[in-house]
Amino acid sequence: MKQNMILAGLALFGLVFLLLVPPPNNANNDSFSPPVQLTLKSPDGRLQLAVFTDQGKLYYTLAHDGKQVIGRSRLGLRFRDQKGFDENLTMRELARNSHDARWEQVWGERQFVRDRHEALVIEVKRADSGQHMRLQFRLFDEGLGFRYEVPKQARFASALITDEITQFALQGDADAWWVPSREWNRYEYIYHETRADAVSLVHTPFTIRQQDGVHLAIHEAALVDYSAMSLKKLRDGLFKADLSPRSEGGLVLTENGFTTPWRTILVGDDAADLANSDLMLNLNEPNKLGDVSWFKPGKYVGIWWGMHIRDRTWGRDGVHGATTEETRRFIEFAAEYGFDGILVEGWNLGWDGNWYENGDVFSFTEAYPDFDIEALADYARQKGVRLIGHHETSGNISNYENQLEDAFDLYERLGYRAVKTGYVADGGDIKRIDDNGITRYEYHDGQAMVNHHHHVIKRAAEHRLAINPHEPVKGTGLWRTYPNWVSREGARGQEYNAWGIPPNPPSHTTILPFTRMLSGPMDFTPGIFDLRPSERPPVRADMPRHDKRSRIETTLAKQLALYVTIYSPIQMAADLPENYLARPAAFKFIRQVPADWQDSRTLQGEIGDYIVVARRDRNSPDWYLGAITDENPRQLKVPLDFLGDCDCRAEIYADGPAADYDTNPYDFVTRTQAVTGTDILTLNLGAGGGAAIRFTPRNQ
Amino acid sequence: MKQNMILAGLALFGLVFLLLVPPPNNANNDSFSPPVQLTLKSPDGRLQLAVFTDQGKLYYTLAHDGKQVIGRSRLGLRFRDQKGFDENLTMRELARNSHDARWEQVWGERQFVRDRHEALVIEVKRADSGQHMRLQFRLFDEGLGFRYEVPKQARFASALITDEITQFALQGDADAWWVPSREWNRYEYIYHETRADAVSLVHTPFTIRQQDGVHLAIHEAALVDYSAMSLKKLRDGLFKADLSPRSEGGLVLTENGFTTPWRTILVGDDAADLANSDLMLNLNEPNKLGDVSWFKPGKYVGIWWGMHIRDRTWGRDGVHGATTEETRRFIEFAAEYGFDGILVEGWNLGWDGNWYENGDVFSFTEAYPDFDIEALADYARQKGVRLIGHHETSGNISNYENQLEDAFDLYERLGYRAVKTGYVADGGDIKRIDDNGITRYEYHDGQAMVNHHHHVIKRAAEHRLAINPHEPVKGTGLWRTYPNWVSREGARGQEYNAWGIPPNPPSHTTILPFTRMLSGPMDFTPGIFDLRPSERPPVRADMPRHDKRSRIETTLAKQLALYVTIYSPIQMAADLPENYLARPAAFKFIRQVPADWQDSRTLQGEIGDYIVVARRDRNSPDWYLGAITDENPRQLKVPLDFLGDCDCRAEIYADGPAADYDTNPYDFVTRTQAVTGTDILTLNLGAGGGAAIRFTPRNQ
Repeated sequence: MKQNMILAGLALFGLVFLLLVPPPNNANNDSFSPPVQLTLKSPDGRLQLAVFTDQGKLYYTLAHDGKQVIGRSRLGLRFRDQKGFDENLTMRELARNSHDARWEQVWGERQFVRDRHEALVIEVKRADSGQHMRLQFRLFDEGLGFRYEVPKQARFASALITDEITQFALQGDADAWWVPSREWNRYEYIYHETRADAVSLVHTPFTIRQQDGVHLAIHEAALVDYSAMSLKKLRDGLFKADLSPRSEGGLVLTENGFTTPWRTILVGDDAADLANSDLMLNLNEPNKLGDVSWFKPGKYVGIWWGMHIRDRTWGRDGVHGATTEETRRFIEFAAEYGFDGILVEGWNLGWDGNWYENGDVFSFTEAYPDFDIEALADYARQKGVRLIGHHETSGNISNYENQLEDAFDLYERLGYRAVKTGYVADGGDIKRIDDNGITRYEYHDGQAMVNHHHHVIKRAAEHRLAINPHEPVKGTGLWRTYPNWVSREGARGQEYNAWGIPPNPPSHTTILPFTRMLSGPMDFTPGIFDLRPSERPPVRADMPRHDKRSRIETTLAKQLALYVTIYSPIQMAADLPENYLARPAAFKFIRQVPADWQDSRTLQGEIGDYIVVARRDRNSPDWYLGAITDENPRQLKVPLDFLGDCDCRAEIYADGPAADYDTNPYDFVTRTQAVTGTDILTLNLGAGGGAAIRFTPRNQ
Repeated sequence: MKQNMILAGLALFGLVFLLLVPPPNNANNDSFSPPVQLTLKSPDGRLQLAVFTDQGKLYYTLAHDGKQVIGRSRLGLRFRDQKGFDENLTMRELARNSHDARWEQVWGERQFVRDRHEALVIEVKRADSGQHMRLQFRLFDEGLGFRYEVPKQARFASALITDEITQFALQGDADAWWVPSREWNRYEYIYHETRADAVSLVHTPFTIRQQDGVHLAIHEAALVDYSAMSLKKLRDGLFKADLSPRSEGGLVLTENGFTTPWRTILVGDDAADLANSDLMLNLNEPNKLGDVSWFKPGKYVGIWWGMHIRDRTWGRDGVHGATTEETRRFIEFAAEYGFDGILVEGWNLGWDGNWYENGDVFSFTEAYPDFDIEALADYARQKGVRLIGHHETSGNISNYENQLEDAFDLYERLGYRAVKTGYVADGGDIKRIDDNGITRYEYHDGQAMVNHHHHVIKRAAEHRLAINPHEPVKGTGLWRTYPNWVSREGARGQEYNAWGIPPNPPSHTTILPFTRMLSGPMDFTPGIFDLRPSERPPVRADMPRHDKRSRIETTLAKQLALYVTIYSPIQMAADLPENYLARPAAFKFIRQVPADWQDSRTLQGEIGDYIVVARRDRNSPDWYLGAITDENPRQLKVPLDFLGDCDCRAEIYADGPAADYDTNPYDFVTRTQAVTGTDILTLNLGAGGGAAIRFTPRNQ
């Protein structure tokens, strides 16, 4: 093998080498056009895009403050039955546009979103076939989005994509935070922190920090009728798009032309810049559902954690959790303490035995006999709360789709407004029966599953139901277009602390805001107050607790802070009612914190170390702040300038002086102090600790 | 996500859990047949195979000394257009057989190979479609082989395989040595040594060591008209077959029924057992070429290393290596010092510029004007040696196949007997133009490339040419069937020491015998004597040497030992003639060591630490021994019982007392001593060092 000589050469000579060596030339081929280059600057002028052809191939680069952050990277597509957009290409500019607008979210991290960008559209033609496509580029101050559009044309009535060539040439090695792709456990891994070059195939958002401190995150927006993009390392520094394959061959099947999702590259001076970006949302289409006021952001409790810690079981082979009596208890607790919803898992037929293999036996309309769904829905309505539905598919989407209308009819009739769905699958493969009766196994993020999720979301909207999928496809900002797609899982959530070995390490929630959360809301389910559930005696001899290594590696205060640091328009208070009532001082914060925001600001943070987030309530002048740290205790100085001229009272829920997630997790203090926007607040976080604060105007 | 609860549960309860919990049952489905089980024992009784159906699915287990080494693992296949062999299955025994035979290799590590195994053939039917297949199992003392056979039948005239379900359920975590699969650089990585559970997608041979010291290696035999199998981790401990995809969709396209390669599992009490196995060869078909006496194992030199260390260039944009004058010099050197062949790279048109991107411009019949191929072939013949051909394709197999007959005609006419081929490809993809003129990009180990290699091997045999592919598909024992497939690359070879950053670490060659070498001969190209080539002054100012970190991380003696520890029927003496002539005492061993063996025995070894190998010359009573160590100095005690009753003279080429690959690599001693088979020889190896020994009967 001699190819790595090139790598060695590059390492040795770096840019000098590139300048000295003449560009590759195909002396025997005169048909290629000379290089043509188009450029585009971001509104603030700091980012510059260049798009060009060289010897018939298409490339782009992206520079930040005059320095490339994405080097020469190829663009293009290949097909099974057509020539590719991969060689013999010419290009020309079709349009340019400057855009600056503000739009309103029906719910979200902020009410109003600014969309300010420079746009460039180019047409690309293949010389020897005449086929053409367009490339759309949108350059924001905070990053780049681009996508391919292959319009309807001769020979493209049907096209099977076999490769998306899109490359991302990083400049120099970098630190990276990532989870592996195309693996059994979807997105649910402890994050790896490595050099970017140690990566092989990773999910997006893929976040890196260059040696000079510039942060990048590569992801996609508006994933519709296409396969999800992972990133594959071609060689050190060079990554390419790698689309999840279809079970029927190829990567994406298109008809009558197609438009790809946006490929996005966030560029920030620091980690917080990534978390504060609205670029992904701006690249999605506006709300297509019209009035969705039937969905209100809020907090919920439910029959869930008890199963994870082995107090209860989903099915009846144990101590069934979803009983009429237990659900009434939760309805009463929710109504009394200000929660909107009550999730109940394990209410329907099909959970007995190995339910994660039983996707073909679930009924989505028939309740277990000990769960009186009609009476409970009535009782909830009386109490002014709503049950939250649950549909576990165990990855068998045919069985689910066959029952979908009946299932949603039932929930609509009973006054449900939200459904949690689940796609746990034995071995990780999604099972689908095609029109010929052939059983197919799909990736959870391939085109078939992307289309399944869209199907469910649209059908749910017709029934005024919001959807919160677990084991989902990753978020790409589609809640702007379908605001009933309210949250999702898509990373290791709290449940791993019930039975994971190891559980989520203290750093986990300091990585999520800069990785997973760049893809949108997460149903993490914070608020566990009994931090050592596996140490309690078993409920029954045949239902032993999990290994003691499974525990919550945070302090009590950090559990509160997560309600601010992790955004979701539906937030669970995940623990059992009795555990909340046992710690009323801490529980007060959960009762108060809202789930919908006027504004949100990540104030400080380093990936994997700590983060400080402030958010303003959508329905009051109150601000909330959450600060968390990894396994290291940390003192943070937080300027309160976001308060403006507010003369405020700060209610502080914090780690006590000896707090430590490992040795003393319950050391917890509350205090109140007067503050203004000119103050700098000092927060002392214990190891694995946090702080949660509510700021209220004192004149109220 | 709740699925990992199962993992946590298993971790907690282990086997007890399995015994207590009833098997999963699909209460709603009565159509499944009850479990049926067939078992088979190895000839020595230590291995036991069980094959069974459970609820219509097919499984196997493998036990060693009564303890499972492969737990309950699924078997089966899925297709795009047919129902799969994945559910609704029944099975019955078709045949059993005990086999014990001896066959002769035309060349190899040993002349005679024993094939002793127990065979079981079962028929598998799918109840709802009537389709059927056969499973063949062969159980040796040293491991298991099995394969699927789908005979010609209705609805299977053409079948596109979309999944091979085959699983390998390891028992408990283990140490693993592996290289990643489906990546740009094919097989050419520094080996990872991790826990098996840290793996995601890996090439085979995949070698692991259980906690109890039992070693396993999973691989395949007889890869014909199929895609290569990688192993994908489904979840901790559970791996499955993962076949390289086709560019045209799916994994493998079959016609009129098909037979898969053998899936093989070696089981050894120690690492040496793996290296001593002939299981893979025994699962291949006998020689189909008839008389191949025109190929003789031997040693060669060539115009190659000079390009890697930047003395010379492949093309003419620099200092061309493949000149008539330089080739004459190598012919003379080979003839004088007993080498059979002279490899010349860069002799043909097409190398100028970025040749690793220029696969479409190579000519395989036109020499550069400064390389007089006719005169040189004549001169070699006069001198009693032969030129070795070279075909670099740069991954463009269409251009190569179009010229193949002409290229082989030329070599045959000029008396060549061997050709080194190369498949370096920019970005790693193999380029192929299909019958419709569509450019396709294939994996190097997908079905298309597997078939390309077979095509080349068969055409070469017709021209009495042996093939040594670099950047090849992995070996699966096919040299038994096609003895002109004499060696291959398929791992990081010596070349990485010329320009790799990092170069091969000292442990690399102590891992290869238990991983890469389980797939057959490797053209590693040992014998570099100038261990710091990058520290010499550049030949020309525009051809600077590589970075000084690129160097040979062995002692001089270890370079000699590699001729014994790494098997290949063609062994290069890779360095420049002047470097050999500067160290005649060490060069003597390279001149003497043969390349064809009567017998071979790995005597001792731990993966990644050291190995000791003894081999007996095929054409004399002499034995040779090679011992090497990793970065640690090591004292080895080697019983010489393999010498039997020989009264022998041992010529020992060894590290000097201060030898150290880093600080003193040239400290080298030779000594002679009398030994017999009852002696135990003590060898002191320096850090990164080795020893090479020739044993000759003293009465000769």
